Amino acid sequence: MTSVITLLTDYGLEDGYVAACHGVIAGIAPQARVIDVCHLIPSGDVRRGAAVLAQTIPYLPPGIHIGAVDPGAGGARRAVAVDAGGRVFIGPDNGLLSWAVRASGGARAAYEISNAEHFLRPVSPTFHGRDVFSPVAGRLSGGLEITDLGPEVPVDRLVVLPEPTSQLREGCVEGEVVSVDRYGNTQLSIAAGDLHALGVQVGDTLGVWLGRRQLSLPYRETYAAVPPGELVAFADSAGLIAIAVNSGDAAQRLGLPPGAHVRLSPTP
Amino acid sequence: MTSVITLLTDYGLEDGYVAACHGVIAGIAPQARVIDVCHLIPSGDVRRGAAVLAQTIPYLPPGIHIGAVDPGAGGARRAVAVDAGGRVFIGPDNGLLSWAVRASGGARAAYEISNAEHFLRPVSPTFHGRDVFSPVAGRLSGGLEITDLGPEVPVDRLVVLPEPTSQLREGCVEGEVVSVDRYGNTQLSIAAGDLHALGVQVGDTLGVWLGRRQLSLPYRETYAAVPPGELVAFADSAGLIAIAVNSGDAAQRLGLPPGAHVRLSPTP
Amino acid sequence: MTSVITLLTDYGLEDGYVAACHGVIAGIAPQARVIDVCHLIPSGDVRRGAAVLAQTIPYLPPGIHIGAVDPGAGGARRAVAVDAGGRVFIGPDNGLLSWAVRASGGARAAYEISNAEHFLRPVSPTFHGRDVFSPVAGRLSGGLEITDLGPEVPVDRLVVLPEPTSQLREGCVEGEVVSVDRYGNTQLSIAAGDLHALGVQVGDTLGVWLGRRQLSLPYRETYAAVPPGELVAFADSAGLIAIAVNSGDAAQRLGLPPGAHVRLSPTP
Repeated sequence: MTSVITLLTDYGLEDGYVAACHGVIAGIAPQARVIDVCHLIPSGDVRRGAAVLAQTIPYLPPGIHIGAVDPGAGGARRAVAVDAGGRVFIGPDNGLLSWAVRASGGARAAYEISNAEHFLRPVSPTFHGRDVFSPVAGRLSGGLEITDLGPEVPVDRLVVLPEPTSQLREGCVEGEVVSVDRYGNTQLSIAAGDLHALGVQVGDTLGVWLGRRQLSLPYRETYAAVPPGELVAFADSAGLIAIAVNSGDAAQRLGLPPGAHVRLSPTP
Repeated sequence: MTSVITLLTDYGLEDGYVAACHGVIAGIAPQARVIDVCHLIPSGDVRRGAAVLAQTIPYLPPGIHIGAVDPGAGGARRAVAVDAGGRVFIGPDNGLLSWAVRASGGARAAYEISNAEHFLRPVSPTFHGRDVFSPVAGRLSGGLEITDLGPEVPVDRLVVLPEPTSQLREGCVEGEVVSVDRYGNTQLSIAAGDLHALGVQVGDTLGVWLGRRQLSLPYRETYAAVPPGELVAFADSAGLIAIAVNSGDAAQRLGLPPGAHVRLSPTP
Repeated sequence: MTSVITLLTDYGLEDGYVAACHGVIAGIAPQARVIDVCHLIPSGDVRRGAAVLAQTIPYLPPGIHIGAVDPGAGGARRAVAVDAGGRVFIGPDNGLLSWAVRASGGARAAYEISNAEHFLRPVSPTFHGRDVFSPVAGRLSGGLEITDLGPEVPVDRLVVLPEPTSQLREGCVEGEVVSVDRYGNTQLSIAAGDLHALGVQVGDTLGVWLGRRQLSLPYRETYAAVPPGELVAFADSAGLIAIAVNSGDAAQRLGLPPGAHVRLSPTP
């Protein structure tokens, strides 16, 4: 099938958990190339995991993509393999994979991962990444058919995470903070295209409402277009509007957590 | 010999130290696949390094396994290569490797790493990972015999770290906190099998003594079996009893550092 | 050309940014081996990035070396590819690459990276690592000529970062703190050779001036040569004098930030 396997987890880097997954894959599929997408998803933060996976997937070669952010591990949720756009996504059916599946063109077929002959034995109820997802990915990489994993799941029964909302209105566009990166850059759910549809161009000034607060921010091509310490809005590397402070931390300065409501409008 | 080389260190990820090891290995043994086990072992914490290595090793393909947590680097401790269960462990003879060697079936033979013709020159007294362990691993991967590294060391002279104690008594089992992971899950030295030998089954309530404090905790298959915020005991992915808070931090809640004494018993 | 590509960035590990670079390279140059040099360079800290790259480069196989610490991304700075000592360095022309280029024997030729047919489209103004440097590195690895990237840049027009100063005087040597690692070891710009030229030998006591403070420190082969908690000076793994506390944090103890002035002399 394919020789690329990618891993996104909330396992952190302070233990051997990620290495155990690499080791299991290397033992089963020595020919596979493993790419770490991210292992510092905050513990159990399915939304953050979904966002990072969906925004990275367009830059990863087609392959087998494991997602393991799984606060319900060992509980009732099922594990699934989803065929989408020439890729196979593997993980818990808790919405984690849903945005990346959509970014890959939508699910073509899905299968419950239930055939235990492809798992390590015993399966730790709390470490499906090592005992279920990694060996299954290795075997798929070696030629196992996805249909051998378990019964088919109708694609409209897959758990889908609600997308961050964004709404183009008369004269403004409303959205929310999707995520904050380690620079403090605050990514909104508002596509650059929606802002441009309102007539905003690079070089203009934006009206920004954060709850009841109102700001005017320069809209530029990048944060480097304003002096250090100044606020700026720009289209980020995912095509979404971000609010940043050049060489500073906008999320902290503005007190903007993920989920906070934001409204943008052209300044007349 | 083998084409897998693994690395466990306390070098951290903020410098180029780990990359220098990767580079040295890639230059000498371009065919080798390098797997990072962990580089965030707390500085000089040999016990933590030993625990992470021993718990990960069953999931790594047989290979050459470097351990570099070495507070005595440049001092009197010797460097060793230990042949155990089809694997070769390389590192300081300070006990770091001892639990992984035992988990691999025990040492079959050991050699002092003293033949400087296999090292980088000059050897930095503070960076044997780069200048000694990495080139030696690369050369072993390329076919060098382990017997060429230096004089044999009797395996009963290797430094062995005391294992965390656990004792099955009449009606209870005593042990200690082995380690705390980034979720705050507290791993005990008590094997699930010992608890089951007392008649405890998943679904029961456990009596837990922490010093003079006594708690009753549900014993479940996983932390997800209790509501968020509640304490639970379960058999973790290494087969040891862990105390956790679902979506919370048990080590912080209970004030349980590594080494703390714990006693478990069935609740009548 | 070469099959090794290395990556040094300030992207951090909490997002999918590094993975996107790996993915782009794997898609274009599946044969290339990618080595991560460091991704935790403090955001925008070009000097720290330059120091880590220059001190690691002697241990990396010849290859294509990407540096992306780029506070001016999207601004006026140009991107360059520099041919030096059988290696190709790729990154912003902001001095980041300059110390590694010097450590590799100096620039033989340099080219502006301006030929957009080798880039991803569209190019995000804030993520040249993914959209410019990674695809260009992949294509060079696949055989593209460096001369195809854009117009030649005279090597004496490349931005060069001022090196940390060090001056051998009558009876003393002056320098500055270059960097502080995660152990709190404080690396000075003073080469061990300069200290030895003053007649200092391992085993001697050093006079150390930190501004107006004066200390006497043992000069030893390694930090392990003094009892835990004690200060010591030694030649570090880069051949530079470092001040450390055995099992402690010298930078914190002495209040020594990067750039602080230090003078060393033999104690009579």
